[in-house]
Amino acid sequence: MSNQNKKGAAVIGQSGGPTSVINQSLVGAVLELKKNGLVDEVLGARHGVRGIVSDDFIGLNTAPDELLERVALTPAAALGSTRDKPDQAYCEKIFQSFARHDVRYFFYIGGNDSADTARIVSELAAKSGHALKTFHIPKTIDNDLRVHDHTPGFGSAARFVACAMMGDNYDNRSLPGIKVDIIMGRNAGFLTAASVLARRHPEDGPHLIYVPEVPVSKEKFLGDVDRVYKKQGRCLIAISEGVSRPDGTIWAEAIVSEALDRDTHGNVQLSGSGALGDYFATLIKEKLGKKLRVRADTFGYLQRSFAGCVSEVDAREARLVGQTAVRYAAEGKDNGSVAMRRNGGSSYNVETFLTPLSTVAKETKHLDPAWISDGNNISAAFENYARPLIGTLPIVGTFDELKK
Amino acid sequence: MSNQNKKGAAVIGQSGGPTSVINQSLVGAVLELKKNGLVDEVLGARHGVRGIVSDDFIGLNTAPDELLERVALTPAAALGSTRDKPDQAYCEKIFQSFARHDVRYFFYIGGNDSADTARIVSELAAKSGHALKTFHIPKTIDNDLRVHDHTPGFGSAARFVACAMMGDNYDNRSLPGIKVDIIMGRNAGFLTAASVLARRHPEDGPHLIYVPEVPVSKEKFLGDVDRVYKKQGRCLIAISEGVSRPDGTIWAEAIVSEALDRDTHGNVQLSGSGALGDYFATLIKEKLGKKLRVRADTFGYLQRSFAGCVSEVDAREARLVGQTAVRYAAEGKDNGSVAMRRNGGSSYNVETFLTPLSTVAKETKHLDPAWISDGNNISAAFENYARPLIGTLPIVGTFDELKK
Repeated sequence: MSNQNKKGAAVIGQSGGPTSVINQSLVGAVLELKKNGLVDEVLGARHGVRGIVSDDFIGLNTAPDELLERVALTPAAALGSTRDKPDQAYCEKIFQSFARHDVRYFFYIGGNDSADTARIVSELAAKSGHALKTFHIPKTIDNDLRVHDHTPGFGSAARFVACAMMGDNYDNRSLPGIKVDIIMGRNAGFLTAASVLARRHPEDGPHLIYVPEVPVSKEKFLGDVDRVYKKQGRCLIAISEGVSRPDGTIWAEAIVSEALDRDTHGNVQLSGSGALGDYFATLIKEKLGKKLRVRADTFGYLQRSFAGCVSEVDAREARLVGQTAVRYAAEGKDNGSVAMRRNGGSSYNVETFLTPLSTVAKETKHLDPAWISDGNNISAAFENYARPLIGTLPIVGTFDELKK
Repeated sequence: MSNQNKKGAAVIGQSGGPTSVINQSLVGAVLELKKNGLVDEVLGARHGVRGIVSDDFIGLNTAPDELLERVALTPAAALGSTRDKPDQAYCEKIFQSFARHDVRYFFYIGGNDSADTARIVSELAAKSGHALKTFHIPKTIDNDLRVHDHTPGFGSAARFVACAMMGDNYDNRSLPGIKVDIIMGRNAGFLTAASVLARRHPEDGPHLIYVPEVPVSKEKFLGDVDRVYKKQGRCLIAISEGVSRPDGTIWAEAIVSEALDRDTHGNVQLSGSGALGDYFATLIKEKLGKKLRVRADTFGYLQRSFAGCVSEVDAREARLVGQTAVRYAAEGKDNGSVAMRRNGGSSYNVETFLTPLSTVAKETKHLDPAWISDGNNISAAFENYARPLIGTLPIVGTFDELKK
């Protein structure tokens, strides 16, 4: 790694919570770089910006296509990820590293925090006269990036949630009771809303869906559960880990504040604990009947990492945005985030475009209020939006069909 | 439903915790009954013995094959399940129902509790001179039936555990820390042991595996975790929900006794709560370092019901034992449980045989002590036993392979 290369180097890194298809984006970019010869060196930063400042790189030019294709199929971040958010001093170290390795392109795969990191790095590079182009490649199971129609990683996580909820619906039919399922999503309810895709028949769960966009009181929640249980003899409930109370506090914070972590972005750590599900299960028993069969599951990290539950559409699009970032770089385009939009045809199809990093960084997107009904359900409009993203669901049948 | 049919009726029911392939057994039996004309009526009992005593049946003769084939692909018990364990009075009601419907064959799909139910019913039938033949069709994700080499339902649940653990291993590599995964299995560690199938490379997790067969003390557990974390910078831990302490008490009971249910078989309810995982995560933080990144997931009901994670071998064998139970009935064989054994060839293959209900009922099987190493790991011999049962795992790759 020296300055003797004529075309310099590209650095690529992965950041934030991994997804099942984040390696598709990595491999899409690397294969395109190998093909178009934009740079002489392709440096994979181990654990994102952390690897950049500590000179921890993997040379990816020489990675055989066969290995890259297997990496693409592997869940989570093959280069390692990080929660670090660079400040001014951190960024100075990034520039020193980039200068040492003659880095001219920086591809950073991540969510809104990572887009913000990319923005800071690109602005500091501009100020210091370092010739660097920075491309943000989108990734988040939360699907909460502004401007982007949807985000690679969401489709596969949504597929996991739909398959889990579909199976749990049949389990709950088999041994009726009340079941609480806690689903990831700190601020945005996209993933929890995707549980609606599990329904095939009017009787199917989830019967109640609570998202962070609509606060719910203890009384409203218990009233909803009681009504469904009395009507159907069972009740399957999807609750976002980020759901809040009418006073604005997050349920999980109010309940388990002492047990919660904060990551370095100041976010409260909601996942990796079963406390919220157990709280709701206990609440239901205490208020609606001690003898009720009430269970809780927290889908947890399986939502983003489960091996063998990938949406093919999601995998294809994750590769597309990685590949497209490199093509934009080769075309001489400036810094930006590679986004998708639907091209408006009668069947589902997307096209890519480049949006300024600042339009994606920091703030997140929420569910369209029109997609939420009665504060405890998700509308058909959301189903139409989300269904093309998760691939084909398993074939099922029930003996209810004999009655028809 | 009357006594005018010449060949009488068969009743089929499903019992206990559902699995992903319990409907394959149901459909295997029903299709065979439709084909061989052994009886005039095939009555599906809704919620097992509960449906028998309350005359809640579905006529399955007329179920189209197309629907049956879709039901076979559907997780959980299509007829509904039950935890009821009939006593003398309950069994009297079962006979009254069987007499009313001229039932000559009873096929009961379930685990050891269900085999015991089948045994009690068949013994009472014999005493009262009712001409009834009772066949137990095996099903349990716990894989703990005596005599049986393995049990339908286990392969798919083991596949889920292996896929979850494989993904979680890559997630844990991406953002290193300590991860606790709680896996189902009240008394037997088969399902927790199956987590070992996720490993591809020496560095891969799970790095520690705790099963109910070997008690573990707090000190031993913390010592193990500390050693692995210091060596590898991360630690992925598989713990059975039924793991016990050296004094013989179950960890989950000791920790969350106040929050636990008991089902009607006198079993403590261990699933449907994240308390055990959270306990171990908190313990690790308190004893090994507050700043450690420690997370816990409880795989929960997804292990037995997730839609779209079925082992093809398991599905085929589940259908086989259902089909075979009916064939044995048609051949005039007596009451029994339909079991599988390996036929000893160089490649994996099974044959079925009939074993008396009493050899399967009540008591369960445990992991072979030779399959457990150092109280915290699983041997290659278990891998050889279990790998043929879970089907082919997803293709993966890591950049570690570049170093070779």
